[in-house]
Amino acid sequence: MRIGILTGGGDCPGLNAVIRAVVRKGIGEHGDEIVGFRDGWRGVLESDTVPMDLGSVRGILPRGGTVLGTSRTNPYAVEGGPERVLATVERLGIEALIPIGGEDTLGVATRLAGAGVRVVGVPKTIDNDLDSTDYTFGFDTAVGVAMEAIDRLHTTGDSHHRTLVVEVMGRHAGWIALHAGMAGGANVVLIPEKPFDVDGVVAHCLHRFGSGYSPIVVVSEGAKPKDGDLMLSTGERDAFGHVRLGGIGAALASLIEERTGREARAVVLGHIQRGGTPSPFDRVLATRFGLAAVDAVHDGQSGVMVALRGTDIVRVPLSAATAQLKLVPPERYAEAEVFFG
Amino acid sequence: MRIGILTGGGDCPGLNAVIRAVVRKGIGEHGDEIVGFRDGWRGVLESDTVPMDLGSVRGILPRGGTVLGTSRTNPYAVEGGPERVLATVERLGIEALIPIGGEDTLGVATRLAGAGVRVVGVPKTIDNDLDSTDYTFGFDTAVGVAMEAIDRLHTTGDSHHRTLVVEVMGRHAGWIALHAGMAGGANVVLIPEKPFDVDGVVAHCLHRFGSGYSPIVVVSEGAKPKDGDLMLSTGERDAFGHVRLGGIGAALASLIEERTGREARAVVLGHIQRGGTPSPFDRVLATRFGLAAVDAVHDGQSGVMVALRGTDIVRVPLSAATAQLKLVPPERYAEAEVFFG
Amino acid sequence: MRIGILTGGGDCPGLNAVIRAVVRKGIGEHGDEIVGFRDGWRGVLESDTVPMDLGSVRGILPRGGTVLGTSRTNPYAVEGGPERVLATVERLGIEALIPIGGEDTLGVATRLAGAGVRVVGVPKTIDNDLDSTDYTFGFDTAVGVAMEAIDRLHTTGDSHHRTLVVEVMGRHAGWIALHAGMAGGANVVLIPEKPFDVDGVVAHCLHRFGSGYSPIVVVSEGAKPKDGDLMLSTGERDAFGHVRLGGIGAALASLIEERTGREARAVVLGHIQRGGTPSPFDRVLATRFGLAAVDAVHDGQSGVMVALRGTDIVRVPLSAATAQLKLVPPERYAEAEVFFG
Amino acid sequence: MRIGILTGGGDCPGLNAVIRAVVRKGIGEHGDEIVGFRDGWRGVLESDTVPMDLGSVRGILPRGGTVLGTSRTNPYAVEGGPERVLATVERLGIEALIPIGGEDTLGVATRLAGAGVRVVGVPKTIDNDLDSTDYTFGFDTAVGVAMEAIDRLHTTGDSHHRTLVVEVMGRHAGWIALHAGMAGGANVVLIPEKPFDVDGVVAHCLHRFGSGYSPIVVVSEGAKPKDGDLMLSTGERDAFGHVRLGGIGAALASLIEERTGREARAVVLGHIQRGGTPSPFDRVLATRFGLAAVDAVHDGQSGVMVALRGTDIVRVPLSAATAQLKLVPPERYAEAEVFFG
Repeated sequence: MRIGILTGGGDCPGLNAVIRAVVRKGIGEHGDEIVGFRDGWRGVLESDTVPMDLGSVRGILPRGGTVLGTSRTNPYAVEGGPERVLATVERLGIEALIPIGGEDTLGVATRLAGAGVRVVGVPKTIDNDLDSTDYTFGFDTAVGVAMEAIDRLHTTGDSHHRTLVVEVMGRHAGWIALHAGMAGGANVVLIPEKPFDVDGVVAHCLHRFGSGYSPIVVVSEGAKPKDGDLMLSTGERDAFGHVRLGGIGAALASLIEERTGREARAVVLGHIQRGGTPSPFDRVLATRFGLAAVDAVHDGQSGVMVALRGTDIVRVPLSAATAQLKLVPPERYAEAEVFFG
Repeated sequence: MRIGILTGGGDCPGLNAVIRAVVRKGIGEHGDEIVGFRDGWRGVLESDTVPMDLGSVRGILPRGGTVLGTSRTNPYAVEGGPERVLATVERLGIEALIPIGGEDTLGVATRLAGAGVRVVGVPKTIDNDLDSTDYTFGFDTAVGVAMEAIDRLHTTGDSHHRTLVVEVMGRHAGWIALHAGMAGGANVVLIPEKPFDVDGVVAHCLHRFGSGYSPIVVVSEGAKPKDGDLMLSTGERDAFGHVRLGGIGAALASLIEERTGREARAVVLGHIQRGGTPSPFDRVLATRFGLAAVDAVHDGQSGVMVALRGTDIVRVPLSAATAQLKLVPPERYAEAEVFFG
Repeated sequence: MRIGILTGGGDCPGLNAVIRAVVRKGIGEHGDEIVGFRDGWRGVLESDTVPMDLGSVRGILPRGGTVLGTSRTNPYAVEGGPERVLATVERLGIEALIPIGGEDTLGVATRLAGAGVRVVGVPKTIDNDLDSTDYTFGFDTAVGVAMEAIDRLHTTGDSHHRTLVVEVMGRHAGWIALHAGMAGGANVVLIPEKPFDVDGVVAHCLHRFGSGYSPIVVVSEGAKPKDGDLMLSTGERDAFGHVRLGGIGAALASLIEERTGREARAVVLGHIQRGGTPSPFDRVLATRFGLAAVDAVHDGQSGVMVALRGTDIVRVPLSAATAQLKLVPPERYAEAEVFFG
Repeated sequence: MRIGILTGGGDCPGLNAVIRAVVRKGIGEHGDEIVGFRDGWRGVLESDTVPMDLGSVRGILPRGGTVLGTSRTNPYAVEGGPERVLATVERLGIEALIPIGGEDTLGVATRLAGAGVRVVGVPKTIDNDLDSTDYTFGFDTAVGVAMEAIDRLHTTGDSHHRTLVVEVMGRHAGWIALHAGMAGGANVVLIPEKPFDVDGVVAHCLHRFGSGYSPIVVVSEGAKPKDGDLMLSTGERDAFGHVRLGGIGAALASLIEERTGREARAVVLGHIQRGGTPSPFDRVLATRFGLAAVDAVHDGQSGVMVALRGTDIVRVPLSAATAQLKLVPPERYAEAEVFFG
């Protein structure tokens, strides 16, 4: 078979592991031909392809990012986009597409499947907020980067008797903050799912100082205080209109410093969370996703996505996967709260 | 409540995270008293205890090993052992026991539960071979140590055009070899579940050399060749009768060198796989196990073990957990085989 | 002898290794008594002490920060400060002081030595800008943290075809940027010693994009553009008057985005550079500094500082050490420039 | 100029950084042509070359090993070898050679320089035992791998109350054991330079157990007991005549277990010490060596080797570099002894 593969949206450790698995299994076991599209749907729109052979994927397993490149191009947002995509698929003789991506990329995939293209999706979101799969690859790596930062910050905080606020990724869901905070021994974890009370945070910080140690506050970039206006007063755009670093983290550190009367500092982990070599968990998960996607294609499936359920890789409808975000449920947040203060 | 806690068997990254979670939740939320027993069941036999308060568990989350110490003492293998254990529990007013351990430790737990002691077990095995739970903590850390070693060995192997054989833990089950091999891009993975054919291994090595790169062979310590006698001819005990390092790994490297006509070297990872700071996955899992064990105790449960199912922590009968080993199923091994050669 | 020890200024990986070495050598070889002062000179001013024995330093070698705490208190900036310091030294029977710190801490040490107190200093600056020593501990660790971040950022930058600007520590000297940039394969390195030309940076970025890869720009927090006013227009203080994150890094990313016409993102590494476990180089150097300081004290030295020259630990006058900053010389910067673009 | 480059002997993290620096500086600044020889002197003997351009060295900085391959081939040990080497150099129009290697490789270089070939050597030895340079690249990385292993082993040793013996590289010189032992907080360090007394080692182990913690013994592979015959009785070759893993480490662990009456285990780090990504220190040092070698070539130098002195890269005669091994001096070993027991 002639199978097209592409990676869309934000990059994520493990993308190359998926690509490698698709190529190794497709070529090695089925004699498939694998066509890589550059930069996500942009490559499909513009017929920008790269032929993938066994040599193309040698050595890429431990590397972050994606050798295919990525973009946020959405063919359905482009004049005549869907038609051009279908034309490319037709002209290149692509018999199946394996798009690897998040909500947006898989949303396109869902519509293409509806339009008759054979599509098997691979879920990707570093935030771990895609429904229908226990975990997505990249998440464990991001949590690891954040946890290592927290491990480092404990000693510097304690030495200086200051609060450290660590801002991590998570615009809508707090999974990275939750796991990194639990793994790093954070004293407060703030997530988008639960608007927080600044005074409550300050109380935990003061309690921690009272024990002779210094607090670590982990906050999702999308976390919001109950008293929302307060934070927005710290303008968040620079002279060029770009969003500035240090939105919620810096603002919160300022408030904590004000109200505890002790120094506070913010650290914004930013892009180091999504770059670099994937963790073992992510390499295995991404590899298994890639293998399972090729299996699904050869089983004649379409409109499905591979997903993790327990230790099994299963197939779920693409539509279900993107129907709603997977948020941190209250009982999981309650686990982290045991360690507050 | 007065709750006893102990860690038995081989140490494992994450034990301290469990202990910390039990103490924080027990004391912080329920006002429990937590009694630590030193060195597993030995501490119970000999009433060797250490009182646990919030200060006892400060800073232990990122540390490997167990602050309680461990041993392989089995009270049922000791004259009058069970009676002494029951007497200790009675005399100290222990209302519930939380033993953290593997097959042996939980086997004792099962019998004590049968004898009327309230027991909630926490599963621990670095080999990931306990049934009834998707994963045990420590496993992900061990896989990570092995994967990092494999990452390192690729470049030295390629530079010298030699085969590198990496022997990892796994006496009865090949989970560490499977995951580390898949994550590290190994060219052959050998596990106890599937006796291997030396000539098949050699063929994969030669194929790899043919591509201009050098092979990495990952082998579980418990893997066995089909032609078993061959390997046993390389005596495995030293002058003092102790088991020597380099059983299967060294023997296999010798055979590969003989039959490929190119240098081969063995690396035995040994104890570095089980020591050191736990991975984020293991810290979160171990913490959740500890919290759930306290919940189970306060829910009046006994004879159960906490376990991971998907993303949930559930309770399963202790007896079921230790009934049989969880082995690598053929379909999982087949996933690794896609990348052989 | 009765020896006082203290750590002042910003914390640094390796401080605990110095403290441990002083205690182990002083107590173990000389039968000294070691008195720890809490939070740098504040502890001396306020007679806030902690007795140090072999148990106090067990397990602290791999830990970042300082078990003694630190502060920026300067007794010479406090009314009656010097008198109180001398009174403390007298009253506690301190025969020698080992202050571990940077310019400020050692400046105080110099004046106390002049006032008759026996003082042997240990140099500490994460920025590596203290004269008279080849390296200071903490620097290698900071470079390592920054290099790992750059390693991670390469793949995410390439995947998205965007520039990544990494802001590292270095207010007056660019050593961290220079070494991390060379080690991480940065395409531009900007340091305080050499005001930069924004258009030159942009040209390097465009050249890099032209090769099919994405640029990494490493910038010291203290680096300044030639056209200085331009940058200052991006206000750097938040609503509470605290310095905001993302000074030069964020401003530069904005300019690069404007002028290359491609996305640019900034990452500010901040405090993770100074926390956490020290690198092997720093642990060995810090340990040797501590041992040598005790030797110097017992040799009757005062007003000196231990220092690294090649592979030897030597003694230099405290005054010389703090006379001027050690800046990156042009020929070292030229080495990095070979790899620009 | 037309410059040949080759890497010989055991591989070492940092080799690729040297190669990259030679290519970037040679081509980028001087318009040189760079010819890579495959597998050390073998490639020169057999005219096995690979043209090196800027693309050849892209992305290789963080990678261990050597993209040129390596071997232990010595042209002076081959019939007609020297003549063939000179003929290759002549025929390919090589105006200067930059061999990167240790004693053997640089010994050949010395003789070729004597025969009129322009040669500038780059020193390489993971053991750090080449004279005339403060450090060689690869050493810091190896120390880091060993230190991380020791960090991990502390917790498992303490949990089980057992001695852990860590065997590290160092056949003739104990630098890796010394630095890794100091950095890892080892309780005994044994090096080839100082034959050890088994009972002395046992006494330190017992003392450590007495403090409630478990001993870590770091031993160079080349360390020897005073009572040498004792150890040799544990045969060190397997059924195929290959040297077995676990020579001194396993033998010593057996003796310690016998004499302390407590379990002891050995870990042999082996090849993971020399593979993998170089540390920041090694990347910077190797890069500077490469740059300096090109400078030396263009300055018309020959028969010299680049070397580190303090923070400077200098040139020393090749002959001096290989005249004698750099061993651990007694005063450096005495530093480690402060922490024994």
